[in-house]
Amino acid sequence: MARVMGSVVSTQKDPSLVGQKLMIIRPIDSDQNEIRFEQVAADKVNAGIGDNVLVVRGSSARRADSENKPDATDVNDCTIVGIIDRFDK
Amino acid sequence: MARVMGSVVSTQKDPSLVGQKLMIIRPIDSDQNEIRFEQVAADKVNAGIGDNVLVVRGSSARRADSENKPDATDVNDCTIVGIIDRFDK
Amino acid sequence: MARVMGSVVSTQKDPSLVGQKLMIIRPIDSDQNEIRFEQVAADKVNAGIGDNVLVVRGSSARRADSENKPDATDVNDCTIVGIIDRFDK
Amino acid sequence: MARVMGSVVSTQKDPSLVGQKLMIIRPIDSDQNEIRFEQVAADKVNAGIGDNVLVVRGSSARRADSENKPDATDVNDCTIVGIIDRFDK
Amino acid sequence: MARVMGSVVSTQKDPSLVGQKLMIIRPIDSDQNEIRFEQVAADKVNAGIGDNVLVVRGSSARRADSENKPDATDVNDCTIVGIIDRFDK
Repeated sequence: MARVMGSVVSTQKDPSLVGQKLMIIRPIDSDQNEIRFEQVAADKVNAGIGDNVLVVRGSSARRADSENKPDATDVNDCTIVGIIDRFDK
Repeated sequence: MARVMGSVVSTQKDPSLVGQKLMIIRPIDSDQNEIRFEQVAADKVNAGIGDNVLVVRGSSARRADSENKPDATDVNDCTIVGIIDRFDK
Repeated sequence: MARVMGSVVSTQKDPSLVGQKLMIIRPIDSDQNEIRFEQVAADKVNAGIGDNVLVVRGSSARRADSENKPDATDVNDCTIVGIIDRFDK
Repeated sequence: MARVMGSVVSTQKDPSLVGQKLMIIRPIDSDQNEIRFEQVAADKVNAGIGDNVLVVRGSSARRADSENKPDATDVNDCTIVGIIDRFDK
Repeated sequence: MARVMGSVVSTQKDPSLVGQKLMIIRPIDSDQNEIRFEQVAADKVNAGIGDNVLVVRGSSARRADSENKPDATDVNDCTIVGIIDRFDK
């Protein structure tokens, strides 16, 4: 779980990242507390700033890209894969 | 080891996550102390809120899904794979 | 490096975990200080409670299982792969 | 996100690392605060000291190398894949 | 980046670890401060105690072994891949 804080502009980058929306996210818990430091994630679900989102990391992050480009050259390691509507506790 | 705290409702998400139960879990130690921040895990064993569960992360998390859908597009990176009955120490 | 603290009993779990000894381990340093929180590891070397052990994580953890069952459905992500006799410093 | 702090000189190393620029990086947040400890990353975008950069870790780090050498013997686990021009918040 | 602190003696271990030098390492930053807890790494470059070394983790650690044995049964998850001569800052 994370909240979208903003975005990153990068002109000089790996070809596999061209055309990807790179968002600044901040991990949160289900009480909306910010719990760890910011990181950068590629956005696949058109999340907006302030949205609470589902994030996957590592090799799973490349799976979310596999429809659009050949996996073998994708360097992404963190991806937004869902927008959180609600926490049920 | 983790305890199930609740669940997450997400309508707009990666197709591989549709139909999966997404639970909020909190890592615990064998004395049932909560030891790290919450995260989201896909539930494969019908765990309930308050259950102590076994959790796997990273590429192992996708293995638990492999019976039901093609692995190559699965973006899950954290999965509940067992319910803990008892700690023996 | 970790010390074996106990074991976990789980009846309802992923088929790939059936028959595996699931131990509670606690990371230690070479002065035998406990340095991080407990986690669960599958035991491949018949470690006993109190033993200092070598542990591997992530995709490497599944390698230690590959003789006994098909790797593709193994969900293990932490494995005990050796018993430590001595630290030389 | 990380800032380039310097570089590392290593003569005796794995063959797959020969000819790679190995930079010392320090993770930062979008307010340019240094947030974690330094680590070493292979540079693929000609970053300079003081640049803010995008970094990938784990198996994704090897993807960025795949044009130049056979992936199977590449031991790199952290790679600089972009130079950050600006944070939008 | 890490410093070699000592070595580990283990008789009962996974077959893929037999014959490997297992060193105790401690992560450091470029000012030679020790920054995290010790861990065990397989040594591929004949590092000595006190040397500052380059370390890779996870699936990358198995790449450094691939010349000598079949990758599929290698359980190593942390490998020393270079000796650091100098930090340039």
